[in-house]
Amino acid sequence: MSEQIGKYSDYSATSNKRLQYLLLGLQVIAIAVLTFCDTSYGEADDYTEWAYGHFQDVHVMIFIGFGFLMTFLKHYNWSAVGFNFLLGAVAIEWYYIVDLIFHKGSLSVSYATMFNCEFAAGACLISFGALLGKVSHLQLVVMALFEIIFYKLNEHTALHWEQTAGFRDVGGSMIIHAFGAYFGLAASKVLYSDRHLNAAKEGADYKTDLFAMIGTIFLWMYWPSFNSIPETDAYTRQIIAINTYTALAAACVTAFAVTGFGDKHGSARFDMVHIQNATLAGGVAMGSSADMKIGIGGAVIIGSIAGAVSTLGYQMIHEILLEKLKIHDTCGVHNLHGIPGILGSVFSMVFGMVLGGDLIWWKQALVLWMTLSIAIVGGTITGWVMKAVVSAEEADKKELFEDAEHWEKEHEE
Amino acid sequence: MSEQIGKYSDYSATSNKRLQYLLLGLQVIAIAVLTFCDTSYGEADDYTEWAYGHFQDVHVMIFIGFGFLMTFLKHYNWSAVGFNFLLGAVAIEWYYIVDLIFHKGSLSVSYATMFNCEFAAGACLISFGALLGKVSHLQLVVMALFEIIFYKLNEHTALHWEQTAGFRDVGGSMIIHAFGAYFGLAASKVLYSDRHLNAAKEGADYKTDLFAMIGTIFLWMYWPSFNSIPETDAYTRQIIAINTYTALAAACVTAFAVTGFGDKHGSARFDMVHIQNATLAGGVAMGSSADMKIGIGGAVIIGSIAGAVSTLGYQMIHEILLEKLKIHDTCGVHNLHGIPGILGSVFSMVFGMVLGGDLIWWKQALVLWMTLSIAIVGGTITGWVMKAVVSAEEADKKELFEDAEHWEKEHEE
Amino acid sequence: MSEQIGKYSDYSATSNKRLQYLLLGLQVIAIAVLTFCDTSYGEADDYTEWAYGHFQDVHVMIFIGFGFLMTFLKHYNWSAVGFNFLLGAVAIEWYYIVDLIFHKGSLSVSYATMFNCEFAAGACLISFGALLGKVSHLQLVVMALFEIIFYKLNEHTALHWEQTAGFRDVGGSMIIHAFGAYFGLAASKVLYSDRHLNAAKEGADYKTDLFAMIGTIFLWMYWPSFNSIPETDAYTRQIIAINTYTALAAACVTAFAVTGFGDKHGSARFDMVHIQNATLAGGVAMGSSADMKIGIGGAVIIGSIAGAVSTLGYQMIHEILLEKLKIHDTCGVHNLHGIPGILGSVFSMVFGMVLGGDLIWWKQALVLWMTLSIAIVGGTITGWVMKAVVSAEEADKKELFEDAEHWEKEHEE
Repeated sequence: MSEQIGKYSDYSATSNKRLQYLLLGLQVIAIAVLTFCDTSYGEADDYTEWAYGHFQDVHVMIFIGFGFLMTFLKHYNWSAVGFNFLLGAVAIEWYYIVDLIFHKGSLSVSYATMFNCEFAAGACLISFGALLGKVSHLQLVVMALFEIIFYKLNEHTALHWEQTAGFRDVGGSMIIHAFGAYFGLAASKVLYSDRHLNAAKEGADYKTDLFAMIGTIFLWMYWPSFNSIPETDAYTRQIIAINTYTALAAACVTAFAVTGFGDKHGSARFDMVHIQNATLAGGVAMGSSADMKIGIGGAVIIGSIAGAVSTLGYQMIHEILLEKLKIHDTCGVHNLHGIPGILGSVFSMVFGMVLGGDLIWWKQALVLWMTLSIAIVGGTITGWVMKAVVSAEEADKKELFEDAEHWEKEHEE
Repeated sequence: MSEQIGKYSDYSATSNKRLQYLLLGLQVIAIAVLTFCDTSYGEADDYTEWAYGHFQDVHVMIFIGFGFLMTFLKHYNWSAVGFNFLLGAVAIEWYYIVDLIFHKGSLSVSYATMFNCEFAAGACLISFGALLGKVSHLQLVVMALFEIIFYKLNEHTALHWEQTAGFRDVGGSMIIHAFGAYFGLAASKVLYSDRHLNAAKEGADYKTDLFAMIGTIFLWMYWPSFNSIPETDAYTRQIIAINTYTALAAACVTAFAVTGFGDKHGSARFDMVHIQNATLAGGVAMGSSADMKIGIGGAVIIGSIAGAVSTLGYQMIHEILLEKLKIHDTCGVHNLHGIPGILGSVFSMVFGMVLGGDLIWWKQALVLWMTLSIAIVGGTITGWVMKAVVSAEEADKKELFEDAEHWEKEHEE
Repeated sequence: MSEQIGKYSDYSATSNKRLQYLLLGLQVIAIAVLTFCDTSYGEADDYTEWAYGHFQDVHVMIFIGFGFLMTFLKHYNWSAVGFNFLLGAVAIEWYYIVDLIFHKGSLSVSYATMFNCEFAAGACLISFGALLGKVSHLQLVVMALFEIIFYKLNEHTALHWEQTAGFRDVGGSMIIHAFGAYFGLAASKVLYSDRHLNAAKEGADYKTDLFAMIGTIFLWMYWPSFNSIPETDAYTRQIIAINTYTALAAACVTAFAVTGFGDKHGSARFDMVHIQNATLAGGVAMGSSADMKIGIGGAVIIGSIAGAVSTLGYQMIHEILLEKLKIHDTCGVHNLHGIPGILGSVFSMVFGMVLGGDLIWWKQALVLWMTLSIAIVGGTITGWVMKAVVSAEEADKKELFEDAEHWEKEHEE
């Protein structure tokens, strides 16, 4: 009656042990740096009263949303939600340290720091989606440590470089979603192996897809909080919430409308993969223009295009990416975060020009170009490092998409 | 080891294809209407700062609460949560359009619009509960499109007709719960077929009932937000939250006390159906009197009566409805939303008279009468339309309570 | 394809029937007391606007967090989440009555009352964790009724006794966590039986452990709200949130670092039990010092020590407790709430001395000593009463860790 966890191949033992020491080392460094450097508690500022509620919504998106969205694989549930948990926690600690360095050793911590930690974690977890089931947790933690440095470099430059002053990306279409997706895809290309194709255990089952819907729906519901949290003006915050809410409804309806075109039997049935992912594309694509007065009609347009393009991406681009470019993208982050992130940037240029206002299109384009460059270069470098930390034997022989490699249970035998 | 989705009968293919075009058509209409009509963003008003948190709680109730509550059927999990997702999103878009028409073509969108969208979606999803597993998604979307028109007609009349000025229904016992339940039951009567009886796949299993508890508990927890969100005064909002919280605790305890009387073995064991549903009746029944100073004693009385009546409804009225009136009510919305909704209206009259104050009992009765009339007439008409959009062959032969009719998965073969 | 619930032994029928009458009696008492005593609605005070959001987070922790955390047992899912639901609701009603008595018959109800109800429920549900699967629901409700009296006695003394004036425990390390754990462990010792060892059904399976992660992660995410809700100053509330958030991240990373040392194969794989529980120890251990300016470095130290000690507790102390002291602790509440609760008190003394300030170490020690004394004496007395309310035959013969004893389903046969 009870389902059991699979068999353990023993090839991951070295990876498992190295992870222990890496995490213990990280704790020692975090304690040393955060205790002896100059950190302080921020004032009760503009953010104080309402931002905490928004923060908790974003927190749910990162740890329940991303975590459960990735539980769709039938033998990789514990790793999906467990490694998501670990990577998110590592990202929080490590972002403090990296942020401290970018602030020249002096850090004032407030609710704003907390949601910046979550955004950095979000970028790492998007990249995790591209690699899900194929690499060890050791490799993932190494990825997170490197990715946050590149992420911070890109975000810091975009916010502080005079050439990009005034660019708009309140919801992080570029800075978070496109960055995380292309970073992960670049790493996945480096780590590509023919073993990733047609792996016996890469697939969902009936109940794991239902667990994944928990993730999807929490992401979908709380996205207006994600996009509006950096905005301190209450009036604009309401605009962002309305735009994001409306675009997400439109993306959901459109994904259901378009998913059936991919039914191999010609029966126009729904594909769970599209529903779990493309419904969210409206939130991603709204990120760069959410604070503009695009109207609910504009929001329906953005959401509908994003939902349709993302669904078609799963039906068409996903295979091309794998076969032509040798990039295996387990969760399809290219279709959920990559393309919709770029679309978000483009929408901001188009609506910025249509509506007038102070948005300068080439600054958006410059940040997009910089984001993609840093993501792809950084992801490639990180992929090489990830390859180096695990022996060729482990990489070749450990079971793919299998929890038993990294999880022990007494009832296993 | 992995559970698979069931077999596909192919009778739903036409329904599936028509749904695609209906949804695409809806997007075209939404874009045209919402882009070219006069919509604007509301001011940062009374609601602005705190209402967003309440809105998110309600949002979770609609999409996680209702969605997972309906996952109890063993072969209909994806449709439960997936169609709930689709219908909710359709309701949001369509409510904008209907609201625009009722506002004579000029709509100011604010957090209040967002939670009104959710309330309209809630009514549709209650009706969905009566029909769960028996009709196609095409029929459900058609239902939502019609239901929101009738819902808005009833709500608009109750709020703007001088005869009903001053009626009280802050939590929507009548306007949302009773309306949604009787609308769905009326449609279910029209769509009744002997095939709905003793269908092999109508039943829960051990894990799907656990998924359903996710829905139950999120609904139960966030109900105080649902009932208090329309109230702008902080003092009264606290009263509503306390009353609702207390009534829900009482309904939960009472449902556990009374459920065992239905055990067929005379062993007084709990029935999961009662726990999933009757525990929530306290929130429904508190809707019309939540803003009165009934005291926590009064709240325990309302919650206890509602919990007991709802549980007994599942034990006794459910069968009568089916056998005498030929109404098949998959989720028992009559016992969760119908009777407790009417009770809520009655409680408001009783407490209004006991406590004095400005509530006029016959206005409550008038709104209740109007609500039931519009729901039953509207539900019957909508049932006829739903019957017309699907061929007799599909209705007769497609598998009931079976996801495979509408969902495709590669691992299915 | 569908999993079924197990067989029913019939030994629980008397327990089931007595529970019905106990719950009905409780409702009669609650209605009488709460209607006729002097209760009123509190003013819209300091707490009003923001506290409601914090309250809802705590509410999720109690009903989803604790409820799903305990679903890990493979045949006891419904009881885990269902009895958690029942006990929580009983605790809310009963706490009103006990609080009324401690307030000499006059109670003003506000958001603060609501979160105090939740804290009392939390203590009971921690104790439930020690007893999970071994006692009937009748015994659990009896436990909750007694425990809340002892809990209130301890909390009231700590807050109002002049000897303890000025003690600090904003997040309840002592008052809630240590109290609940040692109360439950004392009761478990009284109720010990050799049958509790090696029971065939005590164990998790692959999917139930995934349900348990829903509970873990909601507890982990919302813990900053739990610790900060009693604080009315916005600046200090932000400090508490930052400290708790940081300690939880550190506890998570450390639990993952240390769990592998327990792998019986020497392969350093993760143990799901540790991840589900020890990751939370950072929140418990931060409870008494969360409002101090310990810095994020201090928070990482507290979280890391708590996470490591808790994980090692599961690996080492758990067996000793069972074999030497004859205490069977199903969920390991000793490692999650007991030891980290005591650690929390110790950390507050250490940081209080290091940082200076007005905290007096011996007041912390006095409250800790009082808490442990009342918990252990109260738990022992309550254990005797729990033993008395169920016949020796039922206690000896009913199936352990089996839902079918208390739940009926039509599809069972």
